[in-house]
Amino acid sequence: MTKYYFEKTSKITVEFISHKKKTRVPAGMSIFDSANWIGLPIESTCGALGTCGKCKIRVLEGQSGINEFDVKFFTEKELKEGWRLSCKAIISQDMVCEIPQLLGIPKASIMGFGRHVILNPNVHKVYLDLKPPTMEDQCSDHNRIHDALIENGFDVQLPLDVLKLLPSILRQSKWKITAVVVGQELVKIETGDTSNRCYGIAFDIGTTSVVGTLMDLNTGSSVAISSTLNDQAVFGADVITRISYTMTHKNGIGELQKKIIKTLNTLIKELLNKSNISNHEIYEIVITANATMVHLLLGLDPEAIGVTPFIPVLTDSYKLHADELNLKVLPHAHIYFLPHLGAYVGADIVGGLLASGIVQEDALRLLVDVGTNGEIILGSKNGAVATAAPAGPAFEGAQIKDGMRASEGAIESVRIFEDKIELQVIGDVPPVGLCGSGLLDVVAQLRMIGFLETSGKFVKSNNINTKSSTLFQQRMCTDNDGVQSFVLAWPNETGNNKQIVLTQRDIRELQFAKSAIAGGIEILMKKLNVNTNELKNIYLAGSFGNYINPVSAIVVGLVPPIPIDCIKSIGNSSGEGAKIALTSFRERQKVNKYENIVDYLELSGSTEFSDTFMKLLDFPELNKLNLDMN
Amino acid sequence: MTKYYFEKTSKITVEFISHKKKTRVPAGMSIFDSANWIGLPIESTCGALGTCGKCKIRVLEGQSGINEFDVKFFTEKELKEGWRLSCKAIISQDMVCEIPQLLGIPKASIMGFGRHVILNPNVHKVYLDLKPPTMEDQCSDHNRIHDALIENGFDVQLPLDVLKLLPSILRQSKWKITAVVVGQELVKIETGDTSNRCYGIAFDIGTTSVVGTLMDLNTGSSVAISSTLNDQAVFGADVITRISYTMTHKNGIGELQKKIIKTLNTLIKELLNKSNISNHEIYEIVITANATMVHLLLGLDPEAIGVTPFIPVLTDSYKLHADELNLKVLPHAHIYFLPHLGAYVGADIVGGLLASGIVQEDALRLLVDVGTNGEIILGSKNGAVATAAPAGPAFEGAQIKDGMRASEGAIESVRIFEDKIELQVIGDVPPVGLCGSGLLDVVAQLRMIGFLETSGKFVKSNNINTKSSTLFQQRMCTDNDGVQSFVLAWPNETGNNKQIVLTQRDIRELQFAKSAIAGGIEILMKKLNVNTNELKNIYLAGSFGNYINPVSAIVVGLVPPIPIDCIKSIGNSSGEGAKIALTSFRERQKVNKYENIVDYLELSGSTEFSDTFMKLLDFPELNKLNLDMN
Repeated sequence: MTKYYFEKTSKITVEFISHKKKTRVPAGMSIFDSANWIGLPIESTCGALGTCGKCKIRVLEGQSGINEFDVKFFTEKELKEGWRLSCKAIISQDMVCEIPQLLGIPKASIMGFGRHVILNPNVHKVYLDLKPPTMEDQCSDHNRIHDALIENGFDVQLPLDVLKLLPSILRQSKWKITAVVVGQELVKIETGDTSNRCYGIAFDIGTTSVVGTLMDLNTGSSVAISSTLNDQAVFGADVITRISYTMTHKNGIGELQKKIIKTLNTLIKELLNKSNISNHEIYEIVITANATMVHLLLGLDPEAIGVTPFIPVLTDSYKLHADELNLKVLPHAHIYFLPHLGAYVGADIVGGLLASGIVQEDALRLLVDVGTNGEIILGSKNGAVATAAPAGPAFEGAQIKDGMRASEGAIESVRIFEDKIELQVIGDVPPVGLCGSGLLDVVAQLRMIGFLETSGKFVKSNNINTKSSTLFQQRMCTDNDGVQSFVLAWPNETGNNKQIVLTQRDIRELQFAKSAIAGGIEILMKKLNVNTNELKNIYLAGSFGNYINPVSAIVVGLVPPIPIDCIKSIGNSSGEGAKIALTSFRERQKVNKYENIVDYLELSGSTEFSDTFMKLLDFPELNKLNLDMN
Repeated sequence: MTKYYFEKTSKITVEFISHKKKTRVPAGMSIFDSANWIGLPIESTCGALGTCGKCKIRVLEGQSGINEFDVKFFTEKELKEGWRLSCKAIISQDMVCEIPQLLGIPKASIMGFGRHVILNPNVHKVYLDLKPPTMEDQCSDHNRIHDALIENGFDVQLPLDVLKLLPSILRQSKWKITAVVVGQELVKIETGDTSNRCYGIAFDIGTTSVVGTLMDLNTGSSVAISSTLNDQAVFGADVITRISYTMTHKNGIGELQKKIIKTLNTLIKELLNKSNISNHEIYEIVITANATMVHLLLGLDPEAIGVTPFIPVLTDSYKLHADELNLKVLPHAHIYFLPHLGAYVGADIVGGLLASGIVQEDALRLLVDVGTNGEIILGSKNGAVATAAPAGPAFEGAQIKDGMRASEGAIESVRIFEDKIELQVIGDVPPVGLCGSGLLDVVAQLRMIGFLETSGKFVKSNNINTKSSTLFQQRMCTDNDGVQSFVLAWPNETGNNKQIVLTQRDIRELQFAKSAIAGGIEILMKKLNVNTNELKNIYLAGSFGNYINPVSAIVVGLVPPIPIDCIKSIGNSSGEGAKIALTSFRERQKVNKYENIVDYLELSGSTEFSDTFMKLLDFPELNKLNLDMN
């Protein structure tokens, strides 16, 4: 939230002559960042704090001032020759730089959604073979380690607990130790050389379930994955119910905090058991979650998130120590929370942005996380806009006559032919209900076969194509209240001997839900003044997004009609984002700049939104969708 | 302990044209520091962190680079005109600067030993009248405060406990709050405008007694003072006994830590009672103490301090939170420990240096804290050297036949005339023993009246001046073992009906003690290659130093013979140093540079020291002392 007064009117050209690359950046950016954003990752272990001295470059033309960091690392002669620490060298005029040697290709791995991520964790293990003190060298234990770490490029603080163990460990280990540095803190001293063991955990905390991934920070690979239900579920299925609980129970916040901590500790234990790693070898944890889940984990009052004008206590990224949350890993392990973009566009979505790279690339993309609240982000690295659309619970099977969650027995996919229906059921068992993706499919299929008007009403029988009139006659029925339904499965076909139907009211519910999301998307597109043709991709995120049939999404008008193969499910992108942030401090830092790129738009109370919502209740005309109907 | 690679060969001239002042400084210094050291205190509330933007100056000639801090505060035009933040503007060539307006005279007070200290506490209270959130302004509670503080020049972190209270306090106070900023942390939010109440405590923790001063940080004045015995005393009178205790008892460190924390909490309670201030209004505590006391308060193992090669765990300054030590003030109050220069030249002496200003001024001065360990520092701002000399317990009255501590009944001052003796007794009661200053006096007086040889032996009666021969005959006696003594008080004159004598052995003990100190001084003078004529002052520090008669000190050879009125007792300079560090962050920062100015010299095991010690056992020739004998 730092305020820059610098007038960023004109852009400045920076040329990296050694790599034959040029970029144009706003004044005030560091040379390090400007190189990093165009894919020239200059080395750094300190996280661009000016302490490791590894990001040395030479300014050949144009001028960059000398600062307090430069004087620590360069001689007067070197300074005159233009040597600077690129992470602290501010660009204020056109310049030509030289990055000293052709960079060794830094360790990287493909993570998230096809992202090439440089392995650059915030955890560093530094083996030190220290000289024992003598009468000629009476340096304190603290300074002996501190100075050795400075030599290695780390300027760290030593917390009291580490200091307390220092004298005995140093002497027992005969002054051969491994310092575990997280950020700017020395979190642990280990005996001997343990630099080959370096671990962290990425947590994705959903309202319903929690996934933990134990990562090897030396290789960037997953060592173990575990997931479980969020123990808070007993207090309510969604964030609003949980917020209400805290408002109506004296120690509600504390109770909910205890539950999620229990969940996390259960997962930690499982992950450690699976991987044969000790809890004191977990040095950092990165967490993504929606804003309410983060508030409840931190013990912050979420009440103001739940009522207008929807104000979280905290949206920025946040760091604390494991012992502050009673998490059973190294007490001084860092717990890092990704930032939120708004009360209802949380760190989970930010994780998705990181995993998909949307706001780090040039192409215009749309990310939609379909759920009770549909989080929507549209944009590119040149600017983006985000919102949360109140879709309601239809996509979770609630408010739907035969609706259910996506668990065993749920119809997750439907295909309707002129003479038959094909159902795909979770667990390959006889169906007992209809989950969100199935609901979307059946409505889309009914539209395509001509059983539904654009208004969402079932057509009159005389408007039915003759080829499917038999199906229509067999499957359409009317109950005592005159409500029409379409029968998906007869009692003898189901797991509970009750027929499964889609009612006219169900279709209406779906229309409300899709219209909220589509309305959000339309408003964002207007905001950025872009149209459907310019959209390169639509990413469907979240566990639900994974199962959505893109054709159905387009047919019902949930998302704009772009070529089907440009619509991609990106799975648990939130958790992938947490893993990227855990293994790459560079990427984590980029996330903290998202708020400068992404505008948050509040739909609640907006008449533009309610108008758009009403307008979009109808289904789109099929002939305008340009679909390949095979 | 930061390492500067910059070659500080040549000095650079900086001219402050607006104030007609010039200075020559090494390359790599900031303009802010260079102005500060020549008495041009440029405004700053952030402690030269580049966040408050108050230290703006203009570079008229010579060049200073633009850095990441400048771009936050200046427009492109202003940067071109030479405006810079002086705290981050590094001097690398001759320059001419302008400090914008004639500085308002900053609030200052005379503290320590005649030092003019600018009031600049590390605690800042900032009243904020915040705008309540709306649907158009959904900024989180955290960012609402954080951004407002940035506007006020403070870039702070909010600890979890403060965050937890944020939503309720903000709303209850109708968004009118006072932020309490200590360093870079927001330690508390108070309802309404409380900026007129701002307090801290300075503690001077001695091995024997502890003094606390509650300071008003808005005015720099003492509000209340309390002192008490260190509760650790039951575990031993001196640091070595206490270190031994920790080595021989399983939870010894914990026990001793508990005791000193109890002592501090007792004093805190007393100070608060006296001043009608609540414990949550104490925002910062500054502590001076010797290295062992600091280790025991922090719970750090002091064992290696007690055995060769005498290695403390920690010598640097250190900061933690009150709740980490269970001190009963605001839990997030900062506890700041001044740094040590060595295992036996601790933060208490550093406090004395700060209070006396020795290493901040040009004149050559000597600071001596006379005690079991005599801490000695010699030098000026151009360089200094420190050591600890093993004087033994004679100055505390131990190992002396009729010796005692400086408490009621102790002879603290002695004057011997040719026909009588005048004793000054603590508490104006009949004497019961002889304390350190009395011991020093009686030996000096016996030397001056001609009863002692330079070797320290009592003279033969035939060598006595006739005028004082009666006194000699009356007062000299020999015990059964043939040990000669001088009678200071007859049984009927004393409080316990026992005569008080000074034995030949007592004189020997004093010779050992004074010779250790004098030897330390001589070695330091050799080290700096200076002689007595160049010494502007000798400062006698510590509770004992306060009572030493400078004439006696010169006569016995404890300190070099400089004019008597240049020898000054500076009292509890350690505690004064703590008060200065509490009220002035500028001064506190200077202290952290002391280790670059002051070299620590280890005497233990040095043959040069043992040779010098032997050489100095004799008393100096009186005629070489140039004393005015009146």
